[in-house]
Amino acid sequence: MANAYQQMDRAELEAEVARLEAQADDLRALGLKLDMARGKPSPEQTALSKPMLDLLTSETDLTDGAIAADNYFAPDGLPSARALAAELLGVDAKNVIVNGSSSLNLMHDLVAHAYALGVCGGEPWCRQGAIKFLCPAPGYDRHFTVTDHYGIENVPVPMTPDGPDMDLVQDLVENDPQVKGIWCVPKYSNPQGYTYSDETVRRFAALKPAAPDFRIFWDNAYIVHDLYDEGDELLNIFDALAETGNDDLVYEFASTAKVTFPGSGMAFVAASDANMADIRAHFAAVRVCPEKISQLAHVAFLHDAAGVRAHMRKHAQVLRPRFQLVEERLAAGLGELGVATWTNPRGGYFVSFEGPEGSAKAIVSLAKELGVTMTGAGATWPYKQDPHDSNIRIAPTFPSLEDLGAALDVFVLCVKLVSARLALAEK
Amino acid sequence: MANAYQQMDRAELEAEVARLEAQADDLRALGLKLDMARGKPSPEQTALSKPMLDLLTSETDLTDGAIAADNYFAPDGLPSARALAAELLGVDAKNVIVNGSSSLNLMHDLVAHAYALGVCGGEPWCRQGAIKFLCPAPGYDRHFTVTDHYGIENVPVPMTPDGPDMDLVQDLVENDPQVKGIWCVPKYSNPQGYTYSDETVRRFAALKPAAPDFRIFWDNAYIVHDLYDEGDELLNIFDALAETGNDDLVYEFASTAKVTFPGSGMAFVAASDANMADIRAHFAAVRVCPEKISQLAHVAFLHDAAGVRAHMRKHAQVLRPRFQLVEERLAAGLGELGVATWTNPRGGYFVSFEGPEGSAKAIVSLAKELGVTMTGAGATWPYKQDPHDSNIRIAPTFPSLEDLGAALDVFVLCVKLVSARLALAEK
Repeated sequence: MANAYQQMDRAELEAEVARLEAQADDLRALGLKLDMARGKPSPEQTALSKPMLDLLTSETDLTDGAIAADNYFAPDGLPSARALAAELLGVDAKNVIVNGSSSLNLMHDLVAHAYALGVCGGEPWCRQGAIKFLCPAPGYDRHFTVTDHYGIENVPVPMTPDGPDMDLVQDLVENDPQVKGIWCVPKYSNPQGYTYSDETVRRFAALKPAAPDFRIFWDNAYIVHDLYDEGDELLNIFDALAETGNDDLVYEFASTAKVTFPGSGMAFVAASDANMADIRAHFAAVRVCPEKISQLAHVAFLHDAAGVRAHMRKHAQVLRPRFQLVEERLAAGLGELGVATWTNPRGGYFVSFEGPEGSAKAIVSLAKELGVTMTGAGATWPYKQDPHDSNIRIAPTFPSLEDLGAALDVFVLCVKLVSARLALAEK
Repeated sequence: MANAYQQMDRAELEAEVARLEAQADDLRALGLKLDMARGKPSPEQTALSKPMLDLLTSETDLTDGAIAADNYFAPDGLPSARALAAELLGVDAKNVIVNGSSSLNLMHDLVAHAYALGVCGGEPWCRQGAIKFLCPAPGYDRHFTVTDHYGIENVPVPMTPDGPDMDLVQDLVENDPQVKGIWCVPKYSNPQGYTYSDETVRRFAALKPAAPDFRIFWDNAYIVHDLYDEGDELLNIFDALAETGNDDLVYEFASTAKVTFPGSGMAFVAASDANMADIRAHFAAVRVCPEKISQLAHVAFLHDAAGVRAHMRKHAQVLRPRFQLVEERLAAGLGELGVATWTNPRGGYFVSFEGPEGSAKAIVSLAKELGVTMTGAGATWPYKQDPHDSNIRIAPTFPSLEDLGAALDVFVLCVKLVSARLALAEK
């Protein structure tokens, strides 16, 4: 269906473009410096976790059961931290390693391990010729960067509100032994905020990969990151795997990066017994032990899954108005034009925006000119190649509400101006 | 020269063995459970750093210059933490990355990077056939494990009180392009406590490797770990490199693992501008950022290199009596027998012990029987193959003085009994 600009005649459209350009000039004159690019919590959010810093003092007993948190050992992490992570993920604590502060780093380490040394004693990926990873797209650029870094071909797979296109995923995974993995953000996907349907999760669990060393990288980054009291429900992948008997198919990751302090949270990986043995043997060679003082502080602060959820409700109070503001301003500014669609997620960190074909780079570039930094157009696609040049990731969490509103106004104008120019060029 | 047991006649020796066996039976009856295996600080030492836990509270400003320590970014670490690390290493802060809590993990990551992706854009090591690392031996088992893990051949190089045998190192490095690196603990070497001489450091800096992607892994683990006010002086490798112009030859590592909390310290790597660009590009793909809250706490606690040195004097007060006790008990128990030699280091974490040829496994095994765990015999050699079966690493830091004394008494008896039995077998 033609959008509002396409429905105008040439003269109307020329007048509209001129009017929007005048508005852009006014905005440019303001010399704004706003940022809607970064998927990071606001200072208001990180402040929520500062009381954690009061919990460990020089008087604190630094033991965790039989483990001294202030000395070497406990390579899988503190028992209490593993128990907390296991409860969050819905797995047994013996199937969890808590290590480091970056789940992306854990994901990398398992890609690197598979690449250099092989999965569970299999042939290293680096000895298997050209191999591939499936990349639901739009998706998370840092995932794609990891596999690209190792020269692994990133193959885009379309995303739907129910998750990746599972017919395509199944076809590729089950017929091509060079397909070694898939990147998934199953809950509140980055950038759409979609949560995989139960059927999607079950189809993942039922995959019969052509490659024995195929693994699903299940990045449950937003597992507890609900904006509303009633959050999306994601089927537990390990429960689904228990039904199909494919336990070894999945590495699951999560962290408290956006629960406590980004960069200084606890990261964890969960996997089957066989995968854990493989991971543990690797980690035993390459690290001494995790930083357990931070783990002790996290457990003292968060206690358990209920404690995490209570804490996340405080984050939601800060985040909800921001996401609502995005929805309001986009709906008010663009709702009747028919030029764009966007998601309205119930959790996570992003809104995915789809403008007209061929508009995204121009919109992001114009916004930059007017003082608003967006995530780079194309960033959500492998090799930064958005085939439609239409997707833009909106990251509303970091700016203040006031700055966010101002940035959204600029963004809306940019979308309108670029869309009108595109319509004019078609005339 | 024949040792005291070898000088005895058969009857004397049989009587001596019987006497020592009776003593061993008495010790066995005590059911001791002592540990002299672990190179880790004692609880008395880790307690020295507990006041660090009081320094960050919910009231603390968590910024470091322009950087928010409680959020993402600053991939090279906090400016203040880099400045502290740089001052300790005697390099420019721009040449330091502070990341994670394990310097071994940083070493691994650079081995893994070179193996999978290549050094500074060079051919990945995994595509270059059988490659080798030089391993000054006796040395640090965890170093050897990292390269062994990647199937890299570990080639032992003899250690001397001045450092590795540099004639051999030079010959191998300069003539064999398959030699890709060398593991070095240049100050208070593990396990001897030797510090490389200025000449050794200069010869390292002057190496002209056959392989363009050869790197020296300079693990300055004990850089500030002096037992006495007057510590060993190690020539700054980067100063030596500046003279030879071979800046890219070295990765230097250190950490505060044995300054503050083992496993929860700050780890860092220093390298030339070209190497830093290579490392930075790799880390940018594989991690988000370091855990900066811990870095902020470390800087608040240690301040600067002078602060670190003042703190290390407290560690020295705890450690010195332990090292002195080792020297005393070994000298008193074995000094006149001529069966063994051992080092008497002025810093670091270990004493290296050399028993008679073919004795180490038997000594460690007997000690275990009598309730004293030692580092496994052979652990200090690549592939755990001590060609003389004579080296034992003594780790005196963790046990209490009382336990250490009891463990040393057992150890001395084991050395005597095994040496006497060996002498008897020769008759």
